[in-house]
Amino acid sequence: MQKQAEYSDAIRTKYPEQVVIAIARDKNGKANPVTLGWTMIASGDPPMMAIAVAKKHYSVEAITHSKCFTIAFPSVEMADAALFFGSRSGRKVDKFAEFDCPTEPAKEIDSVVLTDAVANFECTLQSQTGAGDHFVFIGRVVCSHTSTEPKKRLYTIGPGHKLGPAS
Amino acid sequence: MQKQAEYSDAIRTKYPEQVVIAIARDKNGKANPVTLGWTMIASGDPPMMAIAVAKKHYSVEAITHSKCFTIAFPSVEMADAALFFGSRSGRKVDKFAEFDCPTEPAKEIDSVVLTDAVANFECTLQSQTGAGDHFVFIGRVVCSHTSTEPKKRLYTIGPGHKLGPAS
Repeated sequence: MQKQAEYSDAIRTKYPEQVVIAIARDKNGKANPVTLGWTMIASGDPPMMAIAVAKKHYSVEAITHSKCFTIAFPSVEMADAALFFGSRSGRKVDKFAEFDCPTEPAKEIDSVVLTDAVANFECTLQSQTGAGDHFVFIGRVVCSHTSTEPKKRLYTIGPGHKLGPAS
Repeated sequence: MQKQAEYSDAIRTKYPEQVVIAIARDKNGKANPVTLGWTMIASGDPPMMAIAVAKKHYSVEAITHSKCFTIAFPSVEMADAALFFGSRSGRKVDKFAEFDCPTEPAKEIDSVVLTDAVANFECTLQSQTGAGDHFVFIGRVVCSHTSTEPKKRLYTIGPGHKLGPAS
């Protein structure tokens, strides 16, 4: 049976929710990572992926400047990096300089991929749509990478940025 | 370490992936459910949610006709319903007539909610964006519901529409 509920209560049934780290270079060339839970695949052929980024976040400037971004699936071992990248602003700090998280140059876009991630997807910006307090960016996947070792993907498993494996 | 990979291989690291059932009435008033894995929250304030629907799917007609839709989080007990709703076309069948899945009228939009779901979100259509072979629909959540009993959310846990709990 269903009962009407506040959205803030009803949405607490969403866990586990996937975590990605989106990375785009700003106008100074600094690669800026941000941790996001609001992401999905948007097209199968050609492959496209979507992310929702808060309008006030620095990543909006970086993505709209560079017109491309990486979507990385962090591994469970990367929980601390995900928390750091999700709680600092690229306006104030160079996140990759302050938190040790190995990167490699992307192959098809001007960005980086995360060496220790489960997978990385290089995307070129296809569209930007306003949605309330966020922008939805859709990117076309132009190059994909996977880890050479088996790794488990990181999820948010409960409120308060509780991170871990889904199972 | 990363190695370049085909997208079709790299994206297999996405599991578990959330499952939702989106429901919209067509021009004849028939409520048409479709099972989707490509969905995300798109805004916090006001709350909005996004779904990607294949351009060829009947649900596109229903959503663009009624300008509203429900997003239900099916429970693990609803795996058979999710498979049925995801493998039939509303062009050919009345899915709710052919598969027993209790519904209740929505409160704020002209749709239904799923009685046995973990949660239901009534959405009014805010935008539609083409993305390759899909449309991304963003809806504003205008009413939310949760199950009166505790239930586990359904996920796709592996290729080939393998459904189950995330943990």
